[in-house]
Amino acid sequence: MKKRLFTPGPTPVPENVMLSMAAPIIHHRNPEFMEILQRVHENLRYLFQTTQPVVVLSCSGTGGMEAAISSLFGKGEKVISVNAGKFGERWGELVRLYTGDCIEESVPWGRAVTPERLKELLREHPDTRGVCLTHSETSTGTASDIQALAAVVREESDALVLVDGITAIGAHEFRFDDWGVDVCITGSQKGLMMPPGLALVAVSERAQDIINAPGRTSQNFYLSLQKALKSHAGDDTPFTPAVSLIIGLDEALTMIREEGIENVWARHESLAAACRAGCTALGMELFSSSPSFAVTPVWLPEGVEWNAFNNALKYSNGITVAAGQDDYKGKIFRISHLGYYDELDMLTIIGALERALREIGYNFPAGSGVTAVQQAFLGS
Amino acid sequence: MKKRLFTPGPTPVPENVMLSMAAPIIHHRNPEFMEILQRVHENLRYLFQTTQPVVVLSCSGTGGMEAAISSLFGKGEKVISVNAGKFGERWGELVRLYTGDCIEESVPWGRAVTPERLKELLREHPDTRGVCLTHSETSTGTASDIQALAAVVREESDALVLVDGITAIGAHEFRFDDWGVDVCITGSQKGLMMPPGLALVAVSERAQDIINAPGRTSQNFYLSLQKALKSHAGDDTPFTPAVSLIIGLDEALTMIREEGIENVWARHESLAAACRAGCTALGMELFSSSPSFAVTPVWLPEGVEWNAFNNALKYSNGITVAAGQDDYKGKIFRISHLGYYDELDMLTIIGALERALREIGYNFPAGSGVTAVQQAFLGS
Repeated sequence: MKKRLFTPGPTPVPENVMLSMAAPIIHHRNPEFMEILQRVHENLRYLFQTTQPVVVLSCSGTGGMEAAISSLFGKGEKVISVNAGKFGERWGELVRLYTGDCIEESVPWGRAVTPERLKELLREHPDTRGVCLTHSETSTGTASDIQALAAVVREESDALVLVDGITAIGAHEFRFDDWGVDVCITGSQKGLMMPPGLALVAVSERAQDIINAPGRTSQNFYLSLQKALKSHAGDDTPFTPAVSLIIGLDEALTMIREEGIENVWARHESLAAACRAGCTALGMELFSSSPSFAVTPVWLPEGVEWNAFNNALKYSNGITVAAGQDDYKGKIFRISHLGYYDELDMLTIIGALERALREIGYNFPAGSGVTAVQQAFLGS
Repeated sequence: MKKRLFTPGPTPVPENVMLSMAAPIIHHRNPEFMEILQRVHENLRYLFQTTQPVVVLSCSGTGGMEAAISSLFGKGEKVISVNAGKFGERWGELVRLYTGDCIEESVPWGRAVTPERLKELLREHPDTRGVCLTHSETSTGTASDIQALAAVVREESDALVLVDGITAIGAHEFRFDDWGVDVCITGSQKGLMMPPGLALVAVSERAQDIINAPGRTSQNFYLSLQKALKSHAGDDTPFTPAVSLIIGLDEALTMIREEGIENVWARHESLAAACRAGCTALGMELFSSSPSFAVTPVWLPEGVEWNAFNNALKYSNGITVAAGQDDYKGKIFRISHLGYYDELDMLTIIGALERALREIGYNFPAGSGVTAVQQAFLGS
């Protein structure tokens, strides 16, 4: 049976990227590799829309988040963290571990924090040194308005703006410099269409000044932005990098550059809209009030049991989607359209939903989902 | 842009088959390779439903047809050849080259020869030594009833029954032994889901007796079934075989064996029916009166120009289908569903047709094609 992945990381890897990683390995202190890393650094600046360095760490996205917190803040420094899902919660865990002073703002799953609420928080806590935000919360398929949130932070305080862009980069418009973001992290296995293994971290001048302030050292040895930035200046890495992954990343970034980042964003917005149209045409309800362009969370219809539905998708149709997490396990499921997907793929996933729902006895006119997808792209 | 192939050879190659061929090359006079070839021979007997040898030749399907004609017939021997398209025509060219006595029966494109007509021909030509048939004529997407045709030959004469099964094997029910076929050929890049480069030729006991008759030699050196059969007996090949292709074939045959040949046939029949339903729902007319399960030929609608349509498919949607050939160039196009395709792929191709037809101004309610596909599989 053909297997097709519709999960928000790992996401499908293009054939040319896979082939580039299958080429014979080269040594990382070799001019050939330095040249690749230089090009990767340049294309990462394009991806994040920044003139500032974007360092490549050989770790998962969480490692990138940890590098940011442990490199930027010391014990006792106050950091606001917005928790609107599984990954917002992670910011809080990291802040508590490294600073011990976390102001955690809980937002109901499926909703995004408002700029007004963030303003209130900053006024309540004028000694805040950083604000941790999540651009696209993967667990809830919900997008935050990072541009507006960053603007509020900049107006109200000197706090640094840290953005978990792990499932947003490459799916949502993001302008690191223009929006005044200080740190943004993504992972390779997301919009970058790569296998897991790399975190990419953009660091503003303000953040660099803090990291490199005299006498300051990171609280972490391996996950140190100070070391990473120092090596980055020479298009190098402080530790042995995941060579084949960086070679693949070079290929993937070239694809993104050729498509054009605005086109990549527009493609994700349009795929997400078609996916939502397909799901609602089948009588299902959407979970998020501020839907992400990376992943679409959907309520399981009344009477549809997650295991039976997932088994029908996976074992009868070869399709993998993501389950709900925590309180929403068994209540929602999540369809990813992040990375290497096109409009025809939306027919595949909605067509497969029709097949699986029919198999388990949930009824609707066959073809109504795929028709909604076609109409989303072609008109009626 | 993602590229998707819907052509009747080459057909898509499964990932595990590609990976098996990327393993380090081994030597062909090595016990490890002999073991692979032995398993390939066994699984080919299963594929053709025969206890007789199926030899592997390193050449295209045409090479397999040439090996059959040049090994079985001598100068001046009369052979009937049914020409109902481009590949039936090829049988005639080979017969004329090697025997010089070809009774060629022309059948209009899109139709199949009837057993009654073949009976008449055999009665008109009682000295016929062989009858060349095409199971699925790729140029016209038309299937012949090989079981009935072979039965007529067996009743009426001692002529050998030669079947071009190049796009039929793996798509249509075929029973070499039960149906009394003497030679059947397929190519690797068809229902076998492999890249091009191999011809597979099943040879009956009757045909073997002729090939190995004392004093008989093939009219061809490399494409000699005599040499191939002799080597086959020791699970060997007479000349250097295409090693990596045979390794891939081993993997592909294992997949077919695991799915079960009856299931493979049924899958093709069902995909072909859905494809036809999708096309007719879009207001297009089918070309063949006896449609193949491997490839569906469709009339281009009134006012739809082939180049514009094909450009919209290829350059806006990454889809490759096959053009019409000879007199039907610019009049029909052909969609393949031969080999590594599943039901979701039929949504993809019909969805892509909708997109391309809309792009060039041919109108219909968006989603009507994909709905017909879903209904074909799920009911209404």
